[in-house]
Amino acid sequence: MDIRDYLDYEPAGRRIEDLDTPVPLIDIGIAERNLKRWQARTDALGLGNRPHIKTHKLAGLARYQRDLGARGITVQKLGEAEVMADAGLSDMLVTFNIVGRSKLERLAALARRTEIMVVADNAAVVEGLGWAGTAAGRDIRVLVECDTGAHRNGVQSPEAAIALARTIDTTPGLAYGGLMTYAKPGTRREAADYLSAARDGASRAGLETKVISSGGSPDMWKDEGLDVLTEYRVGTYIYFDRSLAERHVCSYDDCAVTILATVVSVPTPERALLDAGSKSLTSDLLGMTGYGTVRSLNGATVYDLSEEHGFLDISGSADKPMVGDRLRIVPNHVCPVINLFDRVVVVDGEEVLGAVRVDARGLVQ
Amino acid sequence: MDIRDYLDYEPAGRRIEDLDTPVPLIDIGIAERNLKRWQARTDALGLGNRPHIKTHKLAGLARYQRDLGARGITVQKLGEAEVMADAGLSDMLVTFNIVGRSKLERLAALARRTEIMVVADNAAVVEGLGWAGTAAGRDIRVLVECDTGAHRNGVQSPEAAIALARTIDTTPGLAYGGLMTYAKPGTRREAADYLSAARDGASRAGLETKVISSGGSPDMWKDEGLDVLTEYRVGTYIYFDRSLAERHVCSYDDCAVTILATVVSVPTPERALLDAGSKSLTSDLLGMTGYGTVRSLNGATVYDLSEEHGFLDISGSADKPMVGDRLRIVPNHVCPVINLFDRVVVVDGEEVLGAVRVDARGLVQ
Repeated sequence: MDIRDYLDYEPAGRRIEDLDTPVPLIDIGIAERNLKRWQARTDALGLGNRPHIKTHKLAGLARYQRDLGARGITVQKLGEAEVMADAGLSDMLVTFNIVGRSKLERLAALARRTEIMVVADNAAVVEGLGWAGTAAGRDIRVLVECDTGAHRNGVQSPEAAIALARTIDTTPGLAYGGLMTYAKPGTRREAADYLSAARDGASRAGLETKVISSGGSPDMWKDEGLDVLTEYRVGTYIYFDRSLAERHVCSYDDCAVTILATVVSVPTPERALLDAGSKSLTSDLLGMTGYGTVRSLNGATVYDLSEEHGFLDISGSADKPMVGDRLRIVPNHVCPVINLFDRVVVVDGEEVLGAVRVDARGLVQ
Repeated sequence: MDIRDYLDYEPAGRRIEDLDTPVPLIDIGIAERNLKRWQARTDALGLGNRPHIKTHKLAGLARYQRDLGARGITVQKLGEAEVMADAGLSDMLVTFNIVGRSKLERLAALARRTEIMVVADNAAVVEGLGWAGTAAGRDIRVLVECDTGAHRNGVQSPEAAIALARTIDTTPGLAYGGLMTYAKPGTRREAADYLSAARDGASRAGLETKVISSGGSPDMWKDEGLDVLTEYRVGTYIYFDRSLAERHVCSYDDCAVTILATVVSVPTPERALLDAGSKSLTSDLLGMTGYGTVRSLNGATVYDLSEEHGFLDISGSADKPMVGDRLRIVPNHVCPVINLFDRVVVVDGEEVLGAVRVDARGLVQ
C-alpha cells in the first residue's frame, strides 16, 4: 500500500529542471506523511476521518485516504461526487445544499449506485432532497447544517436544527442522519455547545443523531470541542500551504505543493518577474501579505500579480535570481490553485514520477 | 459574417432556467456590439487593433475579431499561441518573455508554421529567442518591452530600449520589430514620451521601429498618447466586467458575461448563499469592495467567498431572493473567471445557443 501506486502517471520528463513552467509540483512523500499523521490522530481519538477531496481532486488519492482508514470522503459539489463514484469511491458526504431539478435528478442517480449523505439548512432544500430520495427508491441520509458562528450556511439555532431534523424525519425519501457545521477557526468549543444542545433536543424528540461532523484544517490539532463530534472533515491537510504554515498549523517542510516558476525578467535589483500570476496562484490572500513565498530566496514574497506575471520582491535577497532560474513558490491557498490546472506533476523529492490529470477540476457544476 | 456562426456548440439545454449552475453565460449579441464598436474606433484612428485573446480563449471569437478587421491577435503564453495556430490564426504577438529550452523549441516550431512576434526586455531572453529563430530558419521579429511606469516587465529607460534594439538587430535569427509597453492606466501620455524617445533614438542608430504597441482596456477610449502608437491591445473589451463598469469604461449593459448561480440558502434577512464561490468568481478585487454584483437585486454584492459559496448581501433588497432562485452575477474581472471553466454557455438574450469549449484554458504552460 504505497501512495505512489495509487496514481496514473503520464510522462512528464525525467527531471524537475526539464519541466515547462508554471506547473504545480506535488511532493508525494510529504503528502503521504501528512495523511498518515492525521489518520493516526483520528484513530487515537476514535474520531471518524472524512477527508475533503476538494483540495486534491484526485480519485487515486481519495482511494489512498480510504485505504489508510478514512471513514468516507467529503465533496463540495455533485460533480466531484460523480467523479469519485465513477472511480469506485463510496460513502460520501456532500457538504452543500443541492438545489434545482437537474441536480436533484443527478443526486437520485448517485444515490442508486453509491452511499451518499447530504446536508440541508432549510425546508425548501429538504423538500427537493425528499423528491430525490423517493426517485432513488431509498432513503437519503441528511445532516442538518448548523451555523455555529461562521455566518455562512446553516440554521441559526439549536432549536431550528431540531425543527429541521423533524421535518427531515417526516419527509418521505429521507432519513435524519445528524448534524454538520463548519466551525469558524477558534470557535469549536462554542460550536460543540450548539451541537450538543441540538443533539440532546433531537433525542428528546425521539431522533437519533448518529453523525456530528465538523471540519477545518486551521483547528485540526486542537482538542477543545472534539468530544461531541463523531467525524471531522479536513481537506488542506494533505498538502498544507502558506496560510496554514503562517498560522503554525504546519511547518513549511510540511507543504507538499509548490508552483514551479521561471524567472523571466529582473528589471531592477528589487524586482523579479515570474511566469506564475493569478492564473496559477489565484488572488487569494487569506489575510496575508503577498501571494506566495519562495523559500530558497529567504522567504521572498510574490507581492503583486497580473494574470500571468508574478512580481517577486528580491530586495532582501543577497543572491539575486537570474533570468532562467527556476523557483518553487509555496502558494497561499492550495485548494483553488489545484483547481486551475488540468494536470499536476508528482515528484518524490527531486525525482519526477509523472504528470497526473486532476480528475475533478473544471467541472462546470 | 455573423459572430454566432463562429462557434462550435454543444447541447446545453434550451432555456437558461434549465442550465446547471454555476456557469458563465456569454451574451453573444453584447460581445458582438463591443467588438464592432472598438474595431470602428481603431479603424477611424488608423490604429492597428490587436485584440488579446487571454480574455475569451476561444479560437472562434479570435477568428471573428480577425474577420472584423483586427491586424492580428495577442496572446500571453505559448500554449495560447499553439491553440490559436492550430485553429488557423496567424500574425500573433506573444507579450511575454519566452525563457527555457523547451519553450524556445516550441517557439521555433510555431515560427515555422505561423507569423509570430515576440517581446524581450533583457539580453538573456534575446539570446534564447535568437536560438529559436535560428532553429526555425527564419528571423523572428522582436519588440522591446518598455517599463513606462507600470513597474512590471520592461527596460527601464529609452536608452536601455535602444541598446536592446541594437542587440536584437545584431543577433542571428532575430529582427528588431519595434516597441511594446503596458502603460499603467492614466499614464499613456508619459508612455508616449518614453516610446517616442526610444523610437527616435533607434532611428538615429539606423533601426526602423515599425511597431509601437500599447494596451489596456481601462484607457481604451482616451485619446492622449495614441499618436505614437501603431497598434493597441485590448482583451477585456469583448466582455467587459464590473471593474470596467465601475471605472465607467463601459456601462453594465455592456457586460457580456454573467455567472449564473442558484440561491441555496437564505439563513437571515441580510444574507443569501449562492453556489458560486472563489472557484467560479476568483478572489480578484481590483480595488473594489465585494466579488461581483447582481443587477436584478438592485446591485447586491457578493461580500465574501468560500471556494464554492458566494455570500450575497441582501440587506438592501426589498424583494428577498428565495432558495432556488437563479441570479446572474457580473464578475469583478472576467479574464480569470473564464479561465476557471472548461465550458461556457453562449446565449443571445434569453435564448441558449449552446455550450462552447474554452479552447485555451487549463493549459499548463
